[in-house]
Amino acid sequence: MQFSELSREELLNLREELLKQYEEFKGNNLKLDMSRGKPNKEQLDLCNDMMDILNSKSDMKDADGIETRNYGGLLGISECRELFAELMEVETKNVIVYGVASLTIMYDYLAQCMLFGCGDKPWCQQGKIKFLCPCPGYDRHFGMLKHFGIELVNIKMNEDGPDMDSVEEYVKDSTVKGVIVVPKYSNPEGITFSDEVVRRFAALKPAAKDFRVIWDNAYIVHDINDTPDTLLNVFDAAREYGSEDMFIEVCSTSKISFAGAGVSAVAASDKNIEAMKNRMTIQMISQDKVNQLRHVRYFRNLDGIKTHMKKHAAILRPKFEAVVNGFEKELGEAGIAHWSKPNGGYFVSLYVMDGCAKKVGQMCSEAGLTLTTVGATYPYGIDPDDSNIRIAPSFPDVDELNLAVELLCICVKLVSVEKLLNK
Amino acid sequence: MQFSELSREELLNLREELLKQYEEFKGNNLKLDMSRGKPNKEQLDLCNDMMDILNSKSDMKDADGIETRNYGGLLGISECRELFAELMEVETKNVIVYGVASLTIMYDYLAQCMLFGCGDKPWCQQGKIKFLCPCPGYDRHFGMLKHFGIELVNIKMNEDGPDMDSVEEYVKDSTVKGVIVVPKYSNPEGITFSDEVVRRFAALKPAAKDFRVIWDNAYIVHDINDTPDTLLNVFDAAREYGSEDMFIEVCSTSKISFAGAGVSAVAASDKNIEAMKNRMTIQMISQDKVNQLRHVRYFRNLDGIKTHMKKHAAILRPKFEAVVNGFEKELGEAGIAHWSKPNGGYFVSLYVMDGCAKKVGQMCSEAGLTLTTVGATYPYGIDPDDSNIRIAPSFPDVDELNLAVELLCICVKLVSVEKLLNK
Repeated sequence: MQFSELSREELLNLREELLKQYEEFKGNNLKLDMSRGKPNKEQLDLCNDMMDILNSKSDMKDADGIETRNYGGLLGISECRELFAELMEVETKNVIVYGVASLTIMYDYLAQCMLFGCGDKPWCQQGKIKFLCPCPGYDRHFGMLKHFGIELVNIKMNEDGPDMDSVEEYVKDSTVKGVIVVPKYSNPEGITFSDEVVRRFAALKPAAKDFRVIWDNAYIVHDINDTPDTLLNVFDAAREYGSEDMFIEVCSTSKISFAGAGVSAVAASDKNIEAMKNRMTIQMISQDKVNQLRHVRYFRNLDGIKTHMKKHAAILRPKFEAVVNGFEKELGEAGIAHWSKPNGGYFVSLYVMDGCAKKVGQMCSEAGLTLTTVGATYPYGIDPDDSNIRIAPSFPDVDELNLAVELLCICVKLVSVEKLLNK
Repeated sequence: MQFSELSREELLNLREELLKQYEEFKGNNLKLDMSRGKPNKEQLDLCNDMMDILNSKSDMKDADGIETRNYGGLLGISECRELFAELMEVETKNVIVYGVASLTIMYDYLAQCMLFGCGDKPWCQQGKIKFLCPCPGYDRHFGMLKHFGIELVNIKMNEDGPDMDSVEEYVKDSTVKGVIVVPKYSNPEGITFSDEVVRRFAALKPAAKDFRVIWDNAYIVHDINDTPDTLLNVFDAAREYGSEDMFIEVCSTSKISFAGAGVSAVAASDKNIEAMKNRMTIQMISQDKVNQLRHVRYFRNLDGIKTHMKKHAAILRPKFEAVVNGFEKELGEAGIAHWSKPNGGYFVSLYVMDGCAKKVGQMCSEAGLTLTTVGATYPYGIDPDDSNIRIAPSFPDVDELNLAVELLCICVKLVSVEKLLNK
């Protein structure tokens, strides 16, 4: 039954019933958390054998005979560069392996552009500059840009990626210096960019000659079911337009091996790799090469990673199903919400009626369920419609999730009823 | 016999003899390297058991119950912060544990000052700024400052540290923003700052309110004999003058555990830790906590580190002795060179006659012995006296070192004789 078709009396009765349910939940002193895309213990345990792969008897030389325990190997050990090259479908020479997090690579790259520029004057000498922010999106991307004093411009997300008409329009402004995107299983919607969107990115002719697309391929092999999305290789597309220098792709094993001890990598054009390398010679002597060796001895190749990711999928799938089926069951016929049904990644995006998301977040919080701060999925923390709620199903177990979704749906219905009553 | 007292004929004869010796060396196709302060394999092997300390069965939670394999723990796991606090003799709250290299911490800190400032406008908005460079010093420090566009100012190194009269004079200039020093077993001279020098640093009243002393305590526990130097705790000294905010101390396990897979740390005032932390919340989610856990489970505490460092000393001592004794034997009475006899660290500093160092480096190189690029120990790679040569004895074995020192001394003598002949 569509809520919008209910009479005032029916709405009042419904509110009373929902309030009773809500108060019951509140009395249970729950402590549930669906706020961050954090692997659960079971997922971490999948990789425990990696802890045994190197020991005191191991040959610690890499494939080139470089001693991983010692200095050197600035760009990463070659077999680990190869592994990431296979993963990102680029040449090994276009890959640098870094430390724990791809977030740090992005931060570092932006800091480099700020201080030294990337084809024009340093960004910090160019006055007000802007970045395009497809949204809803990843709060840490927005936070990073804001931290550097870059102005954030909202770009609508369509079903097949960012609104490219709008992107193409904005890049005519030379103060627009870039965009950060999650092209596969986007955070928080789980959308994968269509081939057309990828091609339109590759075909961009920005007014700024130092425009950069940070291609945060965080969920590159993070499928959760048997109908995975596929993403066009952006460097293949860029080659057709000669725009390879525009793209900086990053990924990591944070959600493959260990979030607290993984390795990350960047793929970029020869020219960009050279610029990054020149800076790295000043910045460090090498990353942690032993951890690189540990990873590559464990996974061996892309097949090894893919086999491993099936185990992650087996753990995550029931959790995503719990959320999506829960929404379907509780909200499917009410006409007050819609949500994404991703084939991978770490998030489900829930849209409630305009103006209701913050209130839902608050009610959930008061009943012991922590959600990602409502609004955080938009630049400056402001969701113009106050409608989007990011759900991170990975960390809690299925029983907790069922409970959390039940509570969340009660809150969504309650706030929607209030809105309808106040119309 | 002092070379300066030799007659022209004696010098000519000596030259002939030395040339014969040199040509013999040249014919041997040697490939010797005393250029970088790199641990040797035997040293790396000392820590091999650390590779077994964590395995697939290990409890991966830190002392606070934080899962090291997962996200979180921005400032480092608490027991590892404690370990570094004990090492640097500061409070745990004043320590942040980072990844592989302290060089990266310094780079990062300078980048932060450039972009965001440290008590005044961002450095990048202040026009020409300068750093004081005690020299001879560490080429990577100079390289880093130059990379950021900071002007390098030579400061003479005395026997007890940088010439503080000169430092005190320079800091009256508000464009002078800081100094990077290696206060213990300095690179390349192996000098440890006297208590007076440390106190004079603490007592500095720079015109710039955003002046920073980067205290690169790289050799904090790196004694090689039984008469180790002691360094006054700079934060204790600073407390007397209320100048704690001026000091950023870094150190690492690069030369304790593995150069290619160690952990590093920074110690700083509450205010500076807060500023770094605020930036880190944007820059990363955590460093590699598993490697932190590995280190602290292996070393346990400062005593564990000290016991371990005695093993390093046992390996390094004969190498330093080979160099210093070799110099003594070959050059001791010639009056054409002097050199440091450090109690720790990674380097011996050799001073040849003014205007001779580059020529010595070139001759060594032509005979197969690589030295640290002559001049590199000075800002902009220019040794005003062309006199200093940095010797790094750690990597080659003793037999190689004996050979290398023999060749080096032949070159020193030969170039000195040429100089005396051309007077």
